[in-house]
Amino acid sequence: MDPQTLPDLAAIRAAAARIAPHARRTPVLTSRSLDALAGCHLYFKCENLQRAGAFKFRGASNAVWSLDPASAARGVVTQSSGNHGAALALACRERGIAATVVVPANAPKVKLDAIAAFGARIVPCAVAQADRDRVTAQVLAEGGGCLVHPFDDGRVIAGQGTATLELLEQAPEIDTVITPVSGGGLLSGACLAGHGLRPDLRLFGAEPRGASDAHDGLRAGQRITGRVADTLCDGLRAELGRLTFPVLRQHLEAVLLVDDDATVAAMRLVFERLKLVVEPSAAIVLAAVLAEPARFAGRHVGLVLSGGNVDLDRLPWQAGGGPG
Amino acid sequence: MDPQTLPDLAAIRAAAARIAPHARRTPVLTSRSLDALAGCHLYFKCENLQRAGAFKFRGASNAVWSLDPASAARGVVTQSSGNHGAALALACRERGIAATVVVPANAPKVKLDAIAAFGARIVPCAVAQADRDRVTAQVLAEGGGCLVHPFDDGRVIAGQGTATLELLEQAPEIDTVITPVSGGGLLSGACLAGHGLRPDLRLFGAEPRGASDAHDGLRAGQRITGRVADTLCDGLRAELGRLTFPVLRQHLEAVLLVDDDATVAAMRLVFERLKLVVEPSAAIVLAAVLAEPARFAGRHVGLVLSGGNVDLDRLPWQAGGGPG
Repeated sequence: MDPQTLPDLAAIRAAAARIAPHARRTPVLTSRSLDALAGCHLYFKCENLQRAGAFKFRGASNAVWSLDPASAARGVVTQSSGNHGAALALACRERGIAATVVVPANAPKVKLDAIAAFGARIVPCAVAQADRDRVTAQVLAEGGGCLVHPFDDGRVIAGQGTATLELLEQAPEIDTVITPVSGGGLLSGACLAGHGLRPDLRLFGAEPRGASDAHDGLRAGQRITGRVADTLCDGLRAELGRLTFPVLRQHLEAVLLVDDDATVAAMRLVFERLKLVVEPSAAIVLAAVLAEPARFAGRHVGLVLSGGNVDLDRLPWQAGGGPG
Repeated sequence: MDPQTLPDLAAIRAAAARIAPHARRTPVLTSRSLDALAGCHLYFKCENLQRAGAFKFRGASNAVWSLDPASAARGVVTQSSGNHGAALALACRERGIAATVVVPANAPKVKLDAIAAFGARIVPCAVAQADRDRVTAQVLAEGGGCLVHPFDDGRVIAGQGTATLELLEQAPEIDTVITPVSGGGLLSGACLAGHGLRPDLRLFGAEPRGASDAHDGLRAGQRITGRVADTLCDGLRAELGRLTFPVLRQHLEAVLLVDDDATVAAMRLVFERLKLVVEPSAAIVLAAVLAEPARFAGRHVGLVLSGGNVDLDRLPWQAGGGPG
């Protein structure tokens, strides 16, 4: 499978079969009290319960297990400040191949620890995207293996699409799907799987107001790059990619902007009502629904809770833990 | 169904059918990293995901929906400092009947709020068991309805037994079951369902060292009453009942005593690795396994995570939140 080709429904189904021995079929939870609060029917796809604690393991596994033996033997390289790095490290450990992760200096410690725990080689770099790209190119040039980009990679997008494939099987009454949007891998996969199965499905992204490149770029009709994100959603600071931007442009109804305070309040609700540990980047989807009751009234809304890797010593609603 | 009669397997199956329209069939989760840590195979029955956030909804629903219409019309009464009160309040709201809960002054605020939110009448009382009993008797004498005891009630025990019934269906490879023990309703249900299905199943209780009446009483061959519990496991401060004591005596392999520090460490592990919000009284089962690796080596151990109702502003591993 070519990393630069977008997957169709058949490719996403092939990814589902490929990763089935490795990834978890995560449960879909519901809550009458949250339904009452939102005024619609919510279906939470629990990717925080995925292996390595995030949906990222789907795309990483699909990419790693797609490699032919000769390529695999050279190992893989990526850049990631978080869940993709840990997921790729775990997938590589399972296949028995080397992983190198280029990690910017602002990566959360809990995520850095996971990358190391799964046995990847960590190469530190500065925060700016140009620095990350330069160091990654250097590692690749030194023969570190083949690149598995965190989102601008057809194999990764196909893997992420399997979450929506499962969700629509598990709750066929769903008419709307919302996922967080950062680089757009998860949401592109949701678009291609969702509209592949159901052309009338409504698809939305939820994005922090302080990292609104997807919202603004889709309105303007061109990809926005080079901004500095300002949000506590540490998983949602990337910009849309060359592959993902046109997919969202074609399939998405809207990108919903969410304030961090609303995301923190929604995160607390998920802990309290669903009894699930989620990270802010996951809780944003619930915040997006609660902010626009009229838009979703009476609908059957699938929400992808993207991950649960959060610093338990500093939950954001607690004193000293952040805003809110 | 007579509240003073112990349920057999058929009664537990009948309870399962009775509560099926109301209670949730909770998922069973596994974790390779926790298996590696424990040296055995762990199957977590997620009763923290049960409605009202605890297994208690099973027993409460079974009792409430067992009532004939005339009895139901009089409403029900119980005493509870926590999850049973909330569960009974919710079950009564669903059946459209009145609930009165006698609540001691030391009940956690998060649980008191839930009892009130589900619409029960709350009657406060002092902490001592004698005071609770006196006030409860008074409410009953005033015609408050029929008593649904939190654990010494065959209908409640049958309902709690459905958790183990499901667990053994969901993971037939299980050879050992551990539940927390307080009044013994959950564990009695596990014994009657477990040995009803599988006479060779190994059954254990996990009890805080600071509330060891079950451990000590089963060793001594007689029920211990009148002690003052000293544990942060707020759901595990009750004493075994007249109905539950002989069940445990007959079926249990042992009661495992657990220090609160170990329970807090296990609770943090459940948040971190399983991404589940649990209360200390639930996490104690994982602590019990981790404390005795030799006893459970290589086994397939079902652990009932009993509930997830915890004060999210004061998690016990955080400064000011408790020991550990």
